[in-house]
Amino acid sequence: MRIAQVAPPFESIPPTRYGGTERVVSLLTEELVRRGHEVTLFASGDSVTAARLVPTVDTALWRQDDVHDALPYWAITLGEAYRRARDGEFDVVHAHLDFQAFACAGLVATPTVTTLHGRLDLPDLPRLFARFPEAGVISISESQRAPLPQARWLGTVYNAVDVDHLAFSPRGGDYLAYLGRISPEKGLDRAIRIARLAGLPLKVGARMPLKDTSNPVICADWEYYEGAIKPLLRDGRVELLGEIGDADKSELLGNALALLFPIDWPEPFGLVMAEALACGTPVVARRRGSVPEVITHGVTGLVGETDEELARLCREVHAIDRGACRLEAETRFTPAVMARGYEKVYAKETGDRGQEPGRLSRPWHSRVLDRAASEDFVRVG
Amino acid sequence: MRIAQVAPPFESIPPTRYGGTERVVSLLTEELVRRGHEVTLFASGDSVTAARLVPTVDTALWRQDDVHDALPYWAITLGEAYRRARDGEFDVVHAHLDFQAFACAGLVATPTVTTLHGRLDLPDLPRLFARFPEAGVISISESQRAPLPQARWLGTVYNAVDVDHLAFSPRGGDYLAYLGRISPEKGLDRAIRIARLAGLPLKVGARMPLKDTSNPVICADWEYYEGAIKPLLRDGRVELLGEIGDADKSELLGNALALLFPIDWPEPFGLVMAEALACGTPVVARRRGSVPEVITHGVTGLVGETDEELARLCREVHAIDRGACRLEAETRFTPAVMARGYEKVYAKETGDRGQEPGRLSRPWHSRVLDRAASEDFVRVG
Repeated sequence: MRIAQVAPPFESIPPTRYGGTERVVSLLTEELVRRGHEVTLFASGDSVTAARLVPTVDTALWRQDDVHDALPYWAITLGEAYRRARDGEFDVVHAHLDFQAFACAGLVATPTVTTLHGRLDLPDLPRLFARFPEAGVISISESQRAPLPQARWLGTVYNAVDVDHLAFSPRGGDYLAYLGRISPEKGLDRAIRIARLAGLPLKVGARMPLKDTSNPVICADWEYYEGAIKPLLRDGRVELLGEIGDADKSELLGNALALLFPIDWPEPFGLVMAEALACGTPVVARRRGSVPEVITHGVTGLVGETDEELARLCREVHAIDRGACRLEAETRFTPAVMARGYEKVYAKETGDRGQEPGRLSRPWHSRVLDRAASEDFVRVG
Repeated sequence: MRIAQVAPPFESIPPTRYGGTERVVSLLTEELVRRGHEVTLFASGDSVTAARLVPTVDTALWRQDDVHDALPYWAITLGEAYRRARDGEFDVVHAHLDFQAFACAGLVATPTVTTLHGRLDLPDLPRLFARFPEAGVISISESQRAPLPQARWLGTVYNAVDVDHLAFSPRGGDYLAYLGRISPEKGLDRAIRIARLAGLPLKVGARMPLKDTSNPVICADWEYYEGAIKPLLRDGRVELLGEIGDADKSELLGNALALLFPIDWPEPFGLVMAEALACGTPVVARRRGSVPEVITHGVTGLVGETDEELARLCREVHAIDRGACRLEAETRFTPAVMARGYEKVYAKETGDRGQEPGRLSRPWHSRVLDRAASEDFVRVG
């Protein structure tokens, strides 16, 4: 199938730093190429891919000092992708631009599918979706859909992580791990309190927030760090490790007793949960957003609500079978499973139901696909 | 001709408060209807027009408390306009959305023309225009084009003001007038110093800047007011009148000796200069952006550079013939002249050169059109 993957221009594909969407787009693109599809990736020119790359900007925008306004680059991205779509270069366009492709999508014959990577409980979105009832969208968890039941949902396809490069650690360790942004919704303050209540050390992989008062979101993260986190750090059992690169991720996650994920927002997916599972590490998480879909309570982690409850679960989490965690990641969160999920969506939208996906080149995929084929994990429609 | 006018959703058409673009779109739309065209206006639902109104939002966004992000409303605006363009409802789409319509414009058979209402010396724009060489754009002054010579310029069409509702004041008065935002680029600090040097009182029509620290632009205006303006106000000959509505505009401008326009930025047009001329009031202005095109030195105002020079010009400006100022506005800045300029652009883009514009219903237009037809004031191509 001739597939366009359209990525935002802010980060390269794959990302050189934090960038969950870009990481997922990269895994999907490479896997679709591997499966025999003809893939065109619209992304920044410093992206690395086996697909045909159409650069939307020379280098990822965050690296460029002279970028003052993001809007021109959204327009450039849409222009490049849809000019080629108009000329019939693709069977399907897969957009990762939130809702930004909706207006263009309606003007070409080629169908567009859009994966919504963010939270959807924002006040402007119902009005937007009411104006684009024909826009086909894909959720990254079932729970993500709740605020927009009226959208034209084509399916849920869970995100993948790079299972091959996340080392399985069969033994784990004795500390709790936190990995993610320092921001109120990710709940580092809760994590510190929970670890203290549980009597366990906490290792924190997180970049310090920038002190940037011109961006309200970044500014709020900085204030959260200064006001809510710093006072809690007097406890000597919290270790701040700074930003964790891909190489160190397996070590931080794999050597942990559990990943602590005490979020305070409707997490649309939560890649770090799947990364922990790939390392064999169970997750102790707060019941919000996608958590009950990604983590099976009692099998791959423990799910609760209050700090006291989560602290108790941290003391019980050693009973979880780490092999089961790894198996779950291999079964549900590999690029192959994700690609197969999207192939079904593409087939549905292009009316191409009979066509088989490209041939697999690596035999280990087969076990995963057998299980995925049972439709338990990739729900379409 | 079947014409779509596509306005931003932030303010109604016409605007209920400051909104130069919306004022111009309103004058153009009403004049095109009057000239016999079939006009569809895409704008907020609280707009008032003789055209067919397609509401993009129920009410102008600035009136709505629950708007958190502007992007969905740009998408809605484009979706509504281009869905109908795709279906062949228009002969031409006239967009007033900066560059936002470029991507959609390339996907439908109907030509789009875009009036660029803002400054163009922004660092992101050359890259944008390089990707859309086919996008036809209209400048509101010749000087506005300077940073983007590579764009596909279709013509310059000067903005219009509501000449009929701006009363000609043949005598004027003895004070200098300032009308505009309190922001560094508009130069109120210079105006105060110039008035003092000239020994003349200054009346200032301007809304106080808001103290909104979450918006960097508004924040900068507030700091400018606190730091640069307040200390200058000890001079008892400066009178702050607050925001001036349409009704009071003729009085403030018409009773002035001159409008003082000591700007410090590349003004793309400067509606207030044309409004002053319509009241018969000459303009003393700094040579920036559109100023030398809008004001003819020695005929409709005096143009200089330094504060000292502008102060001297203020003392000499009584020699300018106020009747000539009014005539200039009637000749160059009426809705009829502007509409005729755009009709030529539309005809050029639709290949419809032979077709006459709609019949005029009001005889006073004829004198204006005779002069405009000489091509001195509406340059196309």
